[in-house]
Amino acid sequence: MGFDYDAQGLGAADLREAREHVSRVVRRTPLLPSDALSERCGRRVSLKCENLQVGGAFKARGAAHFLARLEPEDRARGVITFSSGNHAIGVATAARRAGVPAVVVMPRTAPAVKLERVKALAAEVHLVGPTSLDRKAKAEEIQKDRGLAMVPPFEHPWIVAGQATCGAEILEDWPETGAILVPVGGGGLAAGIAITCRHHRPAVRVYGVEPEGAAKMAASLRAGEPVTLPSVASIADGLLPSRPGDLTFAIARECLTGVITVSETAIREAAEFLLRRDHLLVEFSGAVGVAALLSRADLPADLPVVAVLSGGNVDPAGVIGASGSG
Amino acid sequence: MGFDYDAQGLGAADLREAREHVSRVVRRTPLLPSDALSERCGRRVSLKCENLQVGGAFKARGAAHFLARLEPEDRARGVITFSSGNHAIGVATAARRAGVPAVVVMPRTAPAVKLERVKALAAEVHLVGPTSLDRKAKAEEIQKDRGLAMVPPFEHPWIVAGQATCGAEILEDWPETGAILVPVGGGGLAAGIAITCRHHRPAVRVYGVEPEGAAKMAASLRAGEPVTLPSVASIADGLLPSRPGDLTFAIARECLTGVITVSETAIREAAEFLLRRDHLLVEFSGAVGVAALLSRADLPADLPVVAVLSGGNVDPAGVIGASGSG
Repeated sequence: MGFDYDAQGLGAADLREAREHVSRVVRRTPLLPSDALSERCGRRVSLKCENLQVGGAFKARGAAHFLARLEPEDRARGVITFSSGNHAIGVATAARRAGVPAVVVMPRTAPAVKLERVKALAAEVHLVGPTSLDRKAKAEEIQKDRGLAMVPPFEHPWIVAGQATCGAEILEDWPETGAILVPVGGGGLAAGIAITCRHHRPAVRVYGVEPEGAAKMAASLRAGEPVTLPSVASIADGLLPSRPGDLTFAIARECLTGVITVSETAIREAAEFLLRRDHLLVEFSGAVGVAALLSRADLPADLPVVAVLSGGNVDPAGVIGASGSG
Repeated sequence: MGFDYDAQGLGAADLREAREHVSRVVRRTPLLPSDALSERCGRRVSLKCENLQVGGAFKARGAAHFLARLEPEDRARGVITFSSGNHAIGVATAARRAGVPAVVVMPRTAPAVKLERVKALAAEVHLVGPTSLDRKAKAEEIQKDRGLAMVPPFEHPWIVAGQATCGAEILEDWPETGAILVPVGGGGLAAGIAITCRHHRPAVRVYGVEPEGAAKMAASLRAGEPVTLPSVASIADGLLPSRPGDLTFAIARECLTGVITVSETAIREAAEFLLRRDHLLVEFSGAVGVAALLSRADLPADLPVVAVLSGGNVDPAGVIGASGSG
């Protein structure tokens, strides 16, 4: 009773199609060896720089594939999404590049840098109350009124297949990759990368990484089913969903080697290290993989590791001195 | 009476040899399209990310080729250099990777981030007084005593040929390149990139960029010979030589399309823009090309432009809010 990839629209052919769609809209981001981290961790470490992706995060990958899979008449009517940040930017970026009208529902409390970016992309933006339920209700209302297609942030095979392209690039660019550390918000990126490895390089270990204060995937894997955390809190504002999706959970259970949780201190230290030593601005959500390395996550010695830097949309003032060591 | 490339050790075969030597020691840095700059400037702009180079700057290229060209017995005795920063790091990095002992003479007043980096590379470091003459005298004394080979910061064909590899990568990675903006300190990087273009793509325009307060190449080109500025001052601490080299001047006169000077305000704004919008930490010296773009340098419309980000060794706290707009 394993996961049926083809039946779920996540077979090898689906991933190939996603690759084609995604490459038309987004960038192949660099995979950079990090001398500083390699020295610090005593193993070879490379960084997959989705902070240098169009829109500043990996999210445009899933959105690009989703838009390409829509029927032409749906694409013409336009899409809508609700998000606290990077998914909104990703949808707006991919939609703009594909010439598709996009409506975005965001919380008033979204980080300023992410709000500005969505507004600059000229998508139609609606600001609503702080909770994810407020956003969802508003988005569903507009969706119904105007017959728009809803682009979900993670719980959809097209989204997962789009994010999977990030994993394919890693495997091609660094065949020695032994393990990949992937931030887990709703689990779309981790699921996509894990499926890619399962199809093409099953020996590669894929670990999800979560903040201690939002470890919904770790809790769900322990419970054997998706669980909803009673509360979540972390400086990693992109990793705050309180429950994984049913689909992303099923893939995680099948394909993830494990989930590592990291402290707030380690996350702050990681983002500052990346800025000072690797010259990369990475948001806290994108730094959790490096946080795992810096806090000596229990990985087999000598395994060459890739940390996926999932995004870079953050005010740098918050990153400097964030760890108290600057 | 043009410049005789082959006689100067800078013919096409010399550049090919440098390419081979350099690729063994340093990284092929990414050339990243910048959506933010392209939008702001109304033309396609890409960034050559030498801030992501080993050692955090382009300098390891020239040093790597220089070390490879030494006779084996000279290499075994070791090398020495004097520098206020990135050249020291570049020599220490290349020497360490090539297993060559290296001595570095630096001023006590060098930026802390650069001093730390040289010390961490375990090169033998001597700290001396603030002027370039103090450093030179000390370095020459040690060189004589111990029979070391001196690695000059820019005024040598091996150094120029090493830096030229940066230009070759640009031309390969983005065949549409119409113009390249290169920071000018002593002129080694600009000379190398200009020679590469002259050999392989003579239609590409190569501009040197200098701070208004250290515009030694612009002054020299006006005078028709290398001139020494009575004083220099700029936040771009890597661009403060007061005179170009005879060799780098001769190449600049022959191969550069022109030299652009930029204000301190534009330099600060550029470094902050690169950090906030492109998620790249770039030192002020490395941001002068982008400063030229932001201050609407007089370039032909629609020409796709590459700005070379020559280094990233800077305290990010100095970059944030540097322009007063943060």
